[in-house]
Amino acid sequence: MAHKRIGGQTVRFENPPSVLAYAAVAGKKEGEGPLSDQFDLVIEDAYYGEKTWEKAEVRMQQEALTRAAEKMGCVPSNFGYIFAGDLINQCLVSSFALRDAGAPVLGLYGACSTMVEALGLASLSVDGGFAECAAALTSSHFASSERQFRMPLEYGNQRTPTAQWTVTGSGVCVVGENGPGPYITHFTAGKIVDMGVTDAANMGAAMAPSAFETLTAFFMDTQTAPSDYDLIVTGDLGRVGFDLLLELFKQHNVQITNVNDCGLMIFDLQGQDVHAGGSGCGCSALVLNSKLLNEMKAGTLNKILVLGTGALLSPVSTQQGESIPGVSHLICISNTKG
Amino acid sequence: MAHKRIGGQTVRFENPPSVLAYAAVAGKKEGEGPLSDQFDLVIEDAYYGEKTWEKAEVRMQQEALTRAAEKMGCVPSNFGYIFAGDLINQCLVSSFALRDAGAPVLGLYGACSTMVEALGLASLSVDGGFAECAAALTSSHFASSERQFRMPLEYGNQRTPTAQWTVTGSGVCVVGENGPGPYITHFTAGKIVDMGVTDAANMGAAMAPSAFETLTAFFMDTQTAPSDYDLIVTGDLGRVGFDLLLELFKQHNVQITNVNDCGLMIFDLQGQDVHAGGSGCGCSALVLNSKLLNEMKAGTLNKILVLGTGALLSPVSTQQGESIPGVSHLICISNTKG
Repeated sequence: MAHKRIGGQTVRFENPPSVLAYAAVAGKKEGEGPLSDQFDLVIEDAYYGEKTWEKAEVRMQQEALTRAAEKMGCVPSNFGYIFAGDLINQCLVSSFALRDAGAPVLGLYGACSTMVEALGLASLSVDGGFAECAAALTSSHFASSERQFRMPLEYGNQRTPTAQWTVTGSGVCVVGENGPGPYITHFTAGKIVDMGVTDAANMGAAMAPSAFETLTAFFMDTQTAPSDYDLIVTGDLGRVGFDLLLELFKQHNVQITNVNDCGLMIFDLQGQDVHAGGSGCGCSALVLNSKLLNEMKAGTLNKILVLGTGALLSPVSTQQGESIPGVSHLICISNTKG
Repeated sequence: MAHKRIGGQTVRFENPPSVLAYAAVAGKKEGEGPLSDQFDLVIEDAYYGEKTWEKAEVRMQQEALTRAAEKMGCVPSNFGYIFAGDLINQCLVSSFALRDAGAPVLGLYGACSTMVEALGLASLSVDGGFAECAAALTSSHFASSERQFRMPLEYGNQRTPTAQWTVTGSGVCVVGENGPGPYITHFTAGKIVDMGVTDAANMGAAMAPSAFETLTAFFMDTQTAPSDYDLIVTGDLGRVGFDLLLELFKQHNVQITNVNDCGLMIFDLQGQDVHAGGSGCGCSALVLNSKLLNEMKAGTLNKILVLGTGALLSPVSTQQGESIPGVSHLICISNTKG
């Protein structure tokens, strides 16, 4: 059977779930960037009134989730599932943010691909008849991530030109059986791709091959081409990874022009001194759940591909001399069900 | 619609996925315990010929996955999805184990509930028509976990009587559309429950309330009672948590006698000096994918409930004075599809 599986990696939803609500709660720096007027809320204080950055991130997830529920006139306990994850060890942020949610929680880890992984699985649960609606939730925080993955901020280390700036913020998207769209029509889960990149300050290079792999699989599975979509958006490849992705398409003689990257969209790279661009689970979560879905709603975009790109980076594996595997998941969002 | 949702948290599969293959690769201590003759393979060397414990755990996952595929006469790249997770930060073990798997990977984090979370989602993907077959994979390793969550082994700290022993091993279960059973008939995803336990050396107490919550939800959703099942097995509550669970049922006047815990089954608590019993993702993964499924196959068990119980413990949250939230997911396995 598996009648919704087309090709090797892609599923086409039979009753494409509709986006019912979405929300984006952004940090200060993100609120000063090009998308400043697109967010539901900008938090000026990195601590959000809490004692630690992790607790601030917890509160951001709660705020985003509550706002999405309010837009639907409900509360988070009405969600059939909440698919959630974050970058902090043991997915601390999601676990604590959802302590009082009152809905079944399925914890994910997909590094920066988590938003799309969550939305893909939420869509799968709705299309499969397992939930009337389901939420996809994630976040990241510059300060909690830098401390965990790289250096304590107090150390003041020099950032390399390839380094990306972890986005502070949380995004949520709720999909359900009945709604006016936009619709999630396809989900392509990615394979893990490891081309041997070992530089933890160059995640874009580690992720680009997996983004190429998943996009190529999607185009093959659906028998479509890049030009069939209004926009193709990658998660957080940043300047370096994005250029590598374009180079990979060029090498394979694939025309692709209508493409952008959340890591390049969320910041003014020159003006905001973020080197290669934004990164972190919050990056694609914020861009998707503000500008992209706003434009889908407005009809200025009608059919887009969103790729969550994850660098499966771990300080432990880096210390053990390992390379950085990448994984990229893809969803197709359309204003029509077809 | 959501026609497969019965009650608040439980789904009943329309075409219950069949277990197609399973495998359990255990560590030395586990191989000396009561289930010694049930495992596919016992690894005598904690390093498994590798340089680090993490790499040993990676190899255990690969070995388990390959063995399950071999039993089906295929390779891991034939699996529609691999749902995988582990305890090590950034799910390092699963990411590296699946670098060359050649199948779409969906990363999970559910602490010690991961085996059941993965199997629930794998079943959902098969029943929903998204994959012909899907694998659920997880692992843990005593040495890699102790170092990360508690103390370096070299420190030789005194273990409290409530402490549990992280199981070394990896288990995998593959489910698919067509097969002779046993079948996964129901999946109940758990809510996060936090009763304020703050002792990282007493995870059983942190998890017991969530196990009670999910079991109660399942019985209510399905209108069944504990006596309708041959056996009810919790993941790794251990001696302390298991006694608390029994106490909770007693307080609520629910008769429950046909119940056991993987953490109590995998070790000889007295003879093997493991204090309150086994824990870790590998605990329920090994017990499910050896003894439990062996007995289902043999017909000595015909209908069981398996609960993955997870303590959403993080060294960071512990340092910040937080309590330990728990989450428990449940699957019902039956030799008939009904």
